[in-house]
Amino acid sequence: MAFRFEIIKKDSVSRARLGRVQTDHGSFTTPAFLPVGTQGSVKSLTPEELVEIGVEAILGNTYHLYLRPGYEIIGRLGGLHTFIHWERPILTDSGGFQIYSLGTLRKISEDGVTFQSHLDGSSHFLTPEKVMEIQRALGSDIAMVLDECVPYPSPFEYVKAAMERTSHWAKRSLEVRRENDPALFAIVQGGLHRDLREESAQTLVEMGFQGYAIGGLSVGEPKPAMLDVLSWTTPLLPENAPRYLMGVGTPEDILDAVMLGVDFFDCVLPTRNARNGTLFTSSGKISIKQAQYAEDGRSVDETCACYTCRHYSRAYLRHLYLSKEILSSRLNTIHNLYYYINLLGKIKGAIQEDRLLDFYQSHGSRLGLEKETSLLFHSH
Amino acid sequence: MAFRFEIIKKDSVSRARLGRVQTDHGSFTTPAFLPVGTQGSVKSLTPEELVEIGVEAILGNTYHLYLRPGYEIIGRLGGLHTFIHWERPILTDSGGFQIYSLGTLRKISEDGVTFQSHLDGSSHFLTPEKVMEIQRALGSDIAMVLDECVPYPSPFEYVKAAMERTSHWAKRSLEVRRENDPALFAIVQGGLHRDLREESAQTLVEMGFQGYAIGGLSVGEPKPAMLDVLSWTTPLLPENAPRYLMGVGTPEDILDAVMLGVDFFDCVLPTRNARNGTLFTSSGKISIKQAQYAEDGRSVDETCACYTCRHYSRAYLRHLYLSKEILSSRLNTIHNLYYYINLLGKIKGAIQEDRLLDFYQSHGSRLGLEKETSLLFHSH
Repeated sequence: MAFRFEIIKKDSVSRARLGRVQTDHGSFTTPAFLPVGTQGSVKSLTPEELVEIGVEAILGNTYHLYLRPGYEIIGRLGGLHTFIHWERPILTDSGGFQIYSLGTLRKISEDGVTFQSHLDGSSHFLTPEKVMEIQRALGSDIAMVLDECVPYPSPFEYVKAAMERTSHWAKRSLEVRRENDPALFAIVQGGLHRDLREESAQTLVEMGFQGYAIGGLSVGEPKPAMLDVLSWTTPLLPENAPRYLMGVGTPEDILDAVMLGVDFFDCVLPTRNARNGTLFTSSGKISIKQAQYAEDGRSVDETCACYTCRHYSRAYLRHLYLSKEILSSRLNTIHNLYYYINLLGKIKGAIQEDRLLDFYQSHGSRLGLEKETSLLFHSH
Repeated sequence: MAFRFEIIKKDSVSRARLGRVQTDHGSFTTPAFLPVGTQGSVKSLTPEELVEIGVEAILGNTYHLYLRPGYEIIGRLGGLHTFIHWERPILTDSGGFQIYSLGTLRKISEDGVTFQSHLDGSSHFLTPEKVMEIQRALGSDIAMVLDECVPYPSPFEYVKAAMERTSHWAKRSLEVRRENDPALFAIVQGGLHRDLREESAQTLVEMGFQGYAIGGLSVGEPKPAMLDVLSWTTPLLPENAPRYLMGVGTPEDILDAVMLGVDFFDCVLPTRNARNGTLFTSSGKISIKQAQYAEDGRSVDETCACYTCRHYSRAYLRHLYLSKEILSSRLNTIHNLYYYINLLGKIKGAIQEDRLLDFYQSHGSRLGLEKETSLLFHSH
């Protein structure tokens, strides 16, 4: 596959970079937020709506698609892009995280991982090689190696063993690569331990991947710990490869992580919050079900240009939510994804125009960012 | 309100008519199918999608909107069209049917009806005058008088009393009409009794309404009985007023009723079936969850030009349904509504070109229409 990452501009006061990723399904600019299309659908939206929102790439969950409808079926029907009618880039995860969070009776050996499906209890055995085969059949543009995720907190020895296994599995994944395979990203593990994170990053970089993910975060650890891990890890990764922070996060997390040199993000937060009636606005989050919106004829965010804000009032959105109408999930998801994509657009503009610090300060003060994020500056 | 009904062409072999209804929110052609926007939303779709499907008018449920969010709120926010972002005609029912099917502890007097909300058990009292006030606040284009619906079967005396009360209420509704009110339609009741139906129709026609609905059908009676009622009733209604068959029906019901002189229809069937995975096709209904579609790369209906059929396979639609994805309801609803709107389009074309009998015979034989519908011809 034709995978290329190009840095367009580096920020002068932080580690942030403006870049572009080229794939066989077109390109996307970074820092990028990839909405999560868990089961072959970014919940409630069509591909055309994603494009209208400005989404350039999405994530698919290998675990879910492997269990249902099955990767062979998707492969025989022309791959995931055709199956779900999405023509732009798709990144697939390895399933590692879902095996831990959803699978039961997990049993890990050096060879691979056995687990029971959360759908029907059926037993499955996945190896690094098998996960490559699955993502190959799906026709992903960017594939992830199988990794071992550990809960937070876990004993040092366990975190270390899982990190080492993740590295062994990354090596095996490289060994079975084929010419037209998706771009392959390794996953840095090591919990909150600086020495383990550094060892993981160095080991993987020596093997040589097309990109590097930072995994095992957003699992309940305190937020400063996540920023510490990023501050230790990104300097050890090659400048010319993209860095992907898996499963993160809030708008504030994303802004912080961009400043620490991260290029891609995925998270269910905007889409899941939308379905729960929690909406992001330029002055913070609101819960649309509150009685105060019952007769509120204003749009969710008067500074927002999304489809939802152009046509619907808070009163109507509240009514749809309380009435459990499907349209509620749709309109809320459109708004929240637009908020995220628009935020990333502002971040990219700020890097381009060398005013990320100003943006950070004005955005941060508006959203009440916490003080510890001051570590983000002058740390590169 | 500027309400006008014009007959463009009458069929030569049946009572079918091709017509046009003009309202303050634009016009629509008849015979027309109005999708049901129960709670201010045609379930799962946006107004733009309805327009793309070819929907020209929709129905709103007074009972639901009265209980939630409340008609005063909708009125203060500019009316139902503004509230739900639908600029074309809206017909609202009177709530009569839902009071019977959803309300509890119903108590009917000559004055009006007391019932408890299915949402929170709160007690409500609705009169014909109040129902006019509600539909006025909603800003409907076409309003219905409050009627008393009876279950099927019911004793003759009860059916008769309810029919008479419906006529009294229709008279009271007329008496409180205001200049800019919605067009007002009366509702013919009388169960399956020819004398009661005839008395109801004659009484209401003498009062003079802008249109006439046929109510109390599609409540469990045998299909030939419904056709009998239509065959007795429509000849008694004024030629130059539209006739609306409430809550009907299947594609076959609609074709039959058009031939018996009906102009409007509304029904939850295409939208509800869609959410349950039942799809209408040119060769009959299919249940998309069936295992036979697991690897079926064809569209639902290869003769269909809807958004769903243009972009998605049966295999993907089955996957979305089994995965309980919101997109499943959307794509299925788009297809089923397109099927209905397209069917009405074919019926209109056949009337225009004087080939309704041919259409009826080819359509009927394809769908296995029952023999009793032969009464539809030469009966005018």
